Amino acid sequence: MSDWREITGGVTAPKGYRAAGITAGLKPSGLPDLALIVSDVDAIAAGVFTTSYVRAACVDYCRERLQKKASARAILVNAGQANAATGEQGWQDALTSAKALAEALQISPDSILLASTGVIGRRILMEPLLAGIPKLVESASETGSDLAAQAIVTTDLVTKSIALETIIDDRPVRVGGIAKGSGMIHPNMATMLSFVTCDAVVSTSLWQEMLSRAADKSFNQITVDGDTSTNDTLIALANGQSRTSAITEMGANAEKLEAMLTAVCQHLAKAIARDGEGATCLLEVQVTGAPDDKGARQIAKTIVGSSLVKSAIFGRDPNWGRIAGAAGRAGVQFDQANLRIQLGDFLMMENGQPLPFDRSAASAYMKQAAGGAYLKDDTVLISVSVGNGNGKGIAWGCDLSYDYVKINAEYTT
Amino acid sequence: MSDWREITGGVTAPKGYRAAGITAGLKPSGLPDLALIVSDVDAIAAGVFTTSYVRAACVDYCRERLQKKASARAILVNAGQANAATGEQGWQDALTSAKALAEALQISPDSILLASTGVIGRRILMEPLLAGIPKLVESASETGSDLAAQAIVTTDLVTKSIALETIIDDRPVRVGGIAKGSGMIHPNMATMLSFVTCDAVVSTSLWQEMLSRAADKSFNQITVDGDTSTNDTLIALANGQSRTSAITEMGANAEKLEAMLTAVCQHLAKAIARDGEGATCLLEVQVTGAPDDKGARQIAKTIVGSSLVKSAIFGRDPNWGRIAGAAGRAGVQFDQANLRIQLGDFLMMENGQPLPFDRSAASAYMKQAAGGAYLKDDTVLISVSVGNGNGKGIAWGCDLSYDYVKINAEYTT
Repeated sequence: MSDWREITGGVTAPKGYRAAGITAGLKPSGLPDLALIVSDVDAIAAGVFTTSYVRAACVDYCRERLQKKASARAILVNAGQANAATGEQGWQDALTSAKALAEALQISPDSILLASTGVIGRRILMEPLLAGIPKLVESASETGSDLAAQAIVTTDLVTKSIALETIIDDRPVRVGGIAKGSGMIHPNMATMLSFVTCDAVVSTSLWQEMLSRAADKSFNQITVDGDTSTNDTLIALANGQSRTSAITEMGANAEKLEAMLTAVCQHLAKAIARDGEGATCLLEVQVTGAPDDKGARQIAKTIVGSSLVKSAIFGRDPNWGRIAGAAGRAGVQFDQANLRIQLGDFLMMENGQPLPFDRSAASAYMKQAAGGAYLKDDTVLISVSVGNGNGKGIAWGCDLSYDYVKINAEYTT
Repeated sequence: MSDWREITGGVTAPKGYRAAGITAGLKPSGLPDLALIVSDVDAIAAGVFTTSYVRAACVDYCRERLQKKASARAILVNAGQANAATGEQGWQDALTSAKALAEALQISPDSILLASTGVIGRRILMEPLLAGIPKLVESASETGSDLAAQAIVTTDLVTKSIALETIIDDRPVRVGGIAKGSGMIHPNMATMLSFVTCDAVVSTSLWQEMLSRAADKSFNQITVDGDTSTNDTLIALANGQSRTSAITEMGANAEKLEAMLTAVCQHLAKAIARDGEGATCLLEVQVTGAPDDKGARQIAKTIVGSSLVKSAIFGRDPNWGRIAGAAGRAGVQFDQANLRIQLGDFLMMENGQPLPFDRSAASAYMKQAAGGAYLKDDTVLISVSVGNGNGKGIAWGCDLSYDYVKINAEYTT
């Protein structure tokens, strides 16, 4: 039983937030491409960003901002140009964008956070962006989450959104989130972006800790193609508008909040994996028995990212040897005599020994998970145990299909 | 100018080696599947093996053997079953194989090294293997390298073989090698295998050092699909039959030998990358300006292994943003303001700034590299500089095509 319930409203479900999404003219497609999330009052702000040494200007901008002051009022997101690998000019464009939004909102520029997604190496189209900002601010509303979610996608097939509610001090506390991405979805397109809002009363340092842990169990555990983007950004705001007692250290209330935050991040992360380029199913890998959680997560992520495992899943081939192979090369030490591998309900290896199993039934299990008939049950589950340790972890991904190659090969030229 | 010349003869080019390849009945296809390399006298033996924690029995066997005694007389290789993830029985099968070959050769079992390639999770078919060994030993000859090279392949499109000769103390010294593999070529099939023979007079510890360094600059720098195999094996024998003065420490002769050994390993490694599953070209990534060689090699290998880069190359799309993205996530720190990216002769980024370039000419350069018309010139070259350091490194791979997915998805079921 969870301590929370799902509600509607996305990032505008928590109290004191408005959002907007408009077409400013940044995407060639003419679809919505500029999004805003704004808190009525200063919100504490925590962020997790790409670890790449080639980063978008907006990532450097947010990092610098949050280091100086861990709070924010608004997040501006443009889709169409990633503003990554754009040199000094990209940095100036970021500053100009923040300044323009601050003026329109009549707040200080240091209360603005930025995110970009789109083609790497291309500057933001500044003219339409600047022209669009007044309209964007004007249209921000307490029901604007869906419009914002639409404006941040690139070639995602669906938008990703969720909101959860729990009770702390007899008062509702809410966490809402939107996200875009599925690896680097579109040729030249970058980035996983996710924005989480919350009305909890929580201390800055605890909020950042919670977000980092939640990211480790969600966004950091998905992979579509192994390519870390230049723009990966996860920002979580908490504006205190639920007016409960302040959560300043770990305890029952803090655990409740962190569990809900983690659930929001996991929902969005799984939605991204499910929408992976060319994917026909969601792949979930659960690992137990590792020396620690970190090791278990690492093994799970290696299996879920293996091109050979992903190809086999696409072919609905119960090829457990590849799962064993991927587990072994994850860089986490274990004794292969303890290896146990299960696909759905089919046990394929135990104590390091191959077991006989019904190949056609195992293949049928995977076929059932293919999109279409079983939209609610599109998950292929792989369970692996590597020993007697207490470490456990989960990772999510998708299969590797012809369409992945098609999407990524047949572009520009 | 190299200090060596290319000669014929593969692993039987160096003095004092015989080889054989026969059809024992291990592969369903009925193609040759059992290979032998034998030295007339005890040869010092160095090995480099998979780092996976899920390993084939033959890998554990060779490691244990070489730890006890760094010399060998013969290498037995079976293709068809990987003997990986086969538990205790797999280990017993390895011992039985070695014992049978030792009896046929009338030498001690601890002078035998073993390698297997094929389906993970399947035991070697021991009956045909044991029945084939006498015939194998009988047919071993000083011109048997090509037969051995044929018997170790699985679904490789071509065999991989080379021999080089240099002069030390006015006497010819030769290194020969054969290899198989292209990642995990065939569904369920594992492994990169390579065997190098040499008639140099060299000390055991120096030979192992040279082999490890050569592997770092060759086999450890290729990737087809990022999946480290359970069976990866590189064994190098040196039997002293060139009868030069002994090479026991680094110096002119040692450098000459190591350069030739490295050239043999690089030739075989590139041959494997070129024969990658579904590959239409060889991809070479040269990195300079890194803090050290290790970092440069790491960046090169990350770029050459990026699914997005590989897909773009397949589509002949000069999508340099993905190259920048992959360089940035390689885990090696650099300042993106120093990044320089070149594709063939086309400079695309310098000092972290995107440059204009002729997209269609760049695409034409890549098309020219496609197999067929330009068989001798099938290489797409990417040059990246990340700063002013002295570190440099090269990695090799191939593009990601529809056929990769086809080969790996459409199997057994």
